[in-house]
Amino acid sequence: MSDRGIIRENDDVLLFLDRKRTFLIKVKPGNSFHTHRGYVNHDDIIGKKFGEAVKSSLSADFMLLKPSVLDYTRKMLRATQIIYPKDIGLILVYSGIGCGSRVVEAGTGSGALTTILANFVGASGKIYSYEAKSEFMEKARKNLERAGILDRVVLKNKDVTLGIEEKDVDAVVLDLATPWKVVPVAYKALKACGVLVSFSPTIEQVINTVEALKENGFVEIEALESIVRRIKVKRGQTRPETLMIGHTGYIIHARKTIKEVIQ
Amino acid sequence: MSDRGIIRENDDVLLFLDRKRTFLIKVKPGNSFHTHRGYVNHDDIIGKKFGEAVKSSLSADFMLLKPSVLDYTRKMLRATQIIYPKDIGLILVYSGIGCGSRVVEAGTGSGALTTILANFVGASGKIYSYEAKSEFMEKARKNLERAGILDRVVLKNKDVTLGIEEKDVDAVVLDLATPWKVVPVAYKALKACGVLVSFSPTIEQVINTVEALKENGFVEIEALESIVRRIKVKRGQTRPETLMIGHTGYIIHARKTIKEVIQ
Amino acid sequence: MSDRGIIRENDDVLLFLDRKRTFLIKVKPGNSFHTHRGYVNHDDIIGKKFGEAVKSSLSADFMLLKPSVLDYTRKMLRATQIIYPKDIGLILVYSGIGCGSRVVEAGTGSGALTTILANFVGASGKIYSYEAKSEFMEKARKNLERAGILDRVVLKNKDVTLGIEEKDVDAVVLDLATPWKVVPVAYKALKACGVLVSFSPTIEQVINTVEALKENGFVEIEALESIVRRIKVKRGQTRPETLMIGHTGYIIHARKTIKEVIQ
Amino acid sequence: MSDRGIIRENDDVLLFLDRKRTFLIKVKPGNSFHTHRGYVNHDDIIGKKFGEAVKSSLSADFMLLKPSVLDYTRKMLRATQIIYPKDIGLILVYSGIGCGSRVVEAGTGSGALTTILANFVGASGKIYSYEAKSEFMEKARKNLERAGILDRVVLKNKDVTLGIEEKDVDAVVLDLATPWKVVPVAYKALKACGVLVSFSPTIEQVINTVEALKENGFVEIEALESIVRRIKVKRGQTRPETLMIGHTGYIIHARKTIKEVIQ
Repeated sequence: MSDRGIIRENDDVLLFLDRKRTFLIKVKPGNSFHTHRGYVNHDDIIGKKFGEAVKSSLSADFMLLKPSVLDYTRKMLRATQIIYPKDIGLILVYSGIGCGSRVVEAGTGSGALTTILANFVGASGKIYSYEAKSEFMEKARKNLERAGILDRVVLKNKDVTLGIEEKDVDAVVLDLATPWKVVPVAYKALKACGVLVSFSPTIEQVINTVEALKENGFVEIEALESIVRRIKVKRGQTRPETLMIGHTGYIIHARKTIKEVIQ
Repeated sequence: MSDRGIIRENDDVLLFLDRKRTFLIKVKPGNSFHTHRGYVNHDDIIGKKFGEAVKSSLSADFMLLKPSVLDYTRKMLRATQIIYPKDIGLILVYSGIGCGSRVVEAGTGSGALTTILANFVGASGKIYSYEAKSEFMEKARKNLERAGILDRVVLKNKDVTLGIEEKDVDAVVLDLATPWKVVPVAYKALKACGVLVSFSPTIEQVINTVEALKENGFVEIEALESIVRRIKVKRGQTRPETLMIGHTGYIIHARKTIKEVIQ
Repeated sequence: MSDRGIIRENDDVLLFLDRKRTFLIKVKPGNSFHTHRGYVNHDDIIGKKFGEAVKSSLSADFMLLKPSVLDYTRKMLRATQIIYPKDIGLILVYSGIGCGSRVVEAGTGSGALTTILANFVGASGKIYSYEAKSEFMEKARKNLERAGILDRVVLKNKDVTLGIEEKDVDAVVLDLATPWKVVPVAYKALKACGVLVSFSPTIEQVINTVEALKENGFVEIEALESIVRRIKVKRGQTRPETLMIGHTGYIIHARKTIKEVIQ
Repeated sequence: MSDRGIIRENDDVLLFLDRKRTFLIKVKPGNSFHTHRGYVNHDDIIGKKFGEAVKSSLSADFMLLKPSVLDYTRKMLRATQIIYPKDIGLILVYSGIGCGSRVVEAGTGSGALTTILANFVGASGKIYSYEAKSEFMEKARKNLERAGILDRVVLKNKDVTLGIEEKDVDAVVLDLATPWKVVPVAYKALKACGVLVSFSPTIEQVINTVEALKENGFVEIEALESIVRRIKVKRGQTRPETLMIGHTGYIIHARKTIKEVIQ
């Protein structure tokens, strides 16, 4: 962030009109940004503080917000379906990670979950992110770079089911089509008591993955679904919103134990 | 954590029988821990590795898990209703915090949310936690000490509605009966674009708080409810569980903007 | 229905292509019905049986279904938001009605709920339906006529809050903006132990109505919300649908008791 | 119901204290009914009106409600898990039945769903209810008799998968462990465009049943789950209830078409 909250050249700024209309721009002298509510001159932004408003050519007020890590994920180039905050929240809270954690992720996809994980392990942590498709990986690389957290991420253009090179990692986070095939290699990569968290849209993926976890030395296996409703709050007219996201996927989490050696 | 995962005297260990039967103990030579499935000698635990199992006197296998931050919150002395992982997840993901963040929390309650927040801001961050009731605060202090994160927390036995002493904090997290009364002082304490997140059980609290946020220079105000279902996974008999937690509370989050100065 | 399931002139037929593409037509010799999948000649339908298929000019198979009462409500001219099956189901099950029941409804709206209620009270029952807006009433009249149940309905172009003319009715069903204002007149119209059921989108309507019921001699007052998810069933890819209706409204039901006479 | 709402000997009365404490009694001169809030003399009830209150020996007010069909199902001798109103509501609304309908049900279980169906088909309709276990059937018979609707029900102590004897029925309603095995015989029993509705707790039952419906000439197949939340309404403290029923089962409904004859 710029000193004392002053916006300078090359800063990322989130232009905020309302919850559904936000725009992520990089400030460049001489540029302007066009919306249906008029254009905004970048020169009018430079020197203002984050949190202030700027007027468009049509006198609309755009708030100048400092982009959060979540904003970066929302504005990413999309290679795949981007994971929702509700699911990220459960992954975070059950993953057991914190500042300094080393986490294996697969697949990288668009890098949205990677970005959030990288934020929460901090500069002293590391995300090792596997992605089999090179075109996804390149998109993710751009997204991570823009979000400013690429230095915390090791991108690996490999099929994770063939093996995980890291050892004693704190957590393995899966968002791919066949998580059950990754369970054995995840087991090897995890430290004792390390956590595997997996996200899957279908119930059959859940059944296969839970079975694999049971057979591979994991305990405290739990399969959850998070449903989040947005409430329309207005005194006298308060109600949940009419349309909602009904389902994105299930979250499974489990902890590694040391399997007994049979001699 | 002990070197190389070996359990030593004074280590905390989570004895895990199944998801509903877990016990958090501090290992002391000579002690034993009694359960309905027999007793476990602490001396049998010392020298084992985290992730291994120990047999009780009745030959039940107890897994020896290294307690996670979530485990500590589950085993806390309870002063108040303890916040659920589903709600913590949303608070984390919307709070905008990360390693090194400075966060104001109110009220401390049992210290469960404090513990999770302290985990995610890391050793370089700080949680300033306000609690008006001194008996809650003392319980929280014990809980935070046990969880090993007390050094990241500044406990303040004060009524937060009377003022927040910190400035330019990254986030304010509220879990108290009248969050709308804290909105003006939270505004002053927050840095520009900082986040306020509030948890409330009733819809009237939500309406009052959203109105206060609108009147006090916050934008991107969103009120959400997270509903989490546990899925009973067994091939041929898979289904959501019969009983569930139907409601804990609503999460509101919003970002501070700089209110225009009228001259 | 035509004899032995044979489709004849003037019969209503539901042309069914798939769940989202159904068309309600009245069969007229010489007519044709045009769709994006080709046209269907009515003459090709006459003489076929309900349940059989007919081919369009583009060789698409349209099933010839006998319209159910629910089909009629789905194809109605809409004056207002049409109530959903999930909510109708709760209204039916809690209303206490059956064949021969006398029910007061307000407001009529498009007549969708009227149609379902008329179906379930049968030819020996009666629905007295109040609607203040004459333009809604006329639309409803057409809809009820088309559904073939107008003879079981007495349409009343009156403001129900000013009074209900019927006495000793079995149930009062409300779907209007201010149900709490109708509670006192509903009390007078109901037989002892008769049921009031009310549908309202907002929580404030629910609070006002529950308070009015408590003050006006009703017991067993319950406020419910029904959330229905559609499951996408395909072996190997089974999951709840991505988008769902998040909220339509709340259902309140209560039973009338005889208030004590204070002398 | 007794004339003019006067309670007489042998009438069923629901003693209502609050939503969770209701008692179904048959009024007998000289009898008394004992509760933790004192006893109620039946003689004090006779001659009162339905909807009035009676005082217990400890001065508690018990409302004298005329039992609804739903009350009878709640007070049944239970052979099996009793189906919930939320699921009954969906079954009713999608079944296409009404006064005079002929419906096949399997299995009878405790007869709760049978009772509701019998209420809605009325005196001119008929429910043919199959139950393989004779001990369930006898319990159901007692329940149906008490509810006063046994004359509308034909109880059949048979395994429905071996065949349905009725023809051209309006609907087949299934609540048994292997609904997919009943689909072929249900097809034969149904009239064209008749409806099959099935209730199943597990997702695997749903998958099997939907596949069987697709293979057996049914269209408009839909699998739904109804989730009902109870709202605790109290001004200033309004919120969904903490504990809720998370899952009972899925509802599938579909309509019979006439399969093409291949020559």
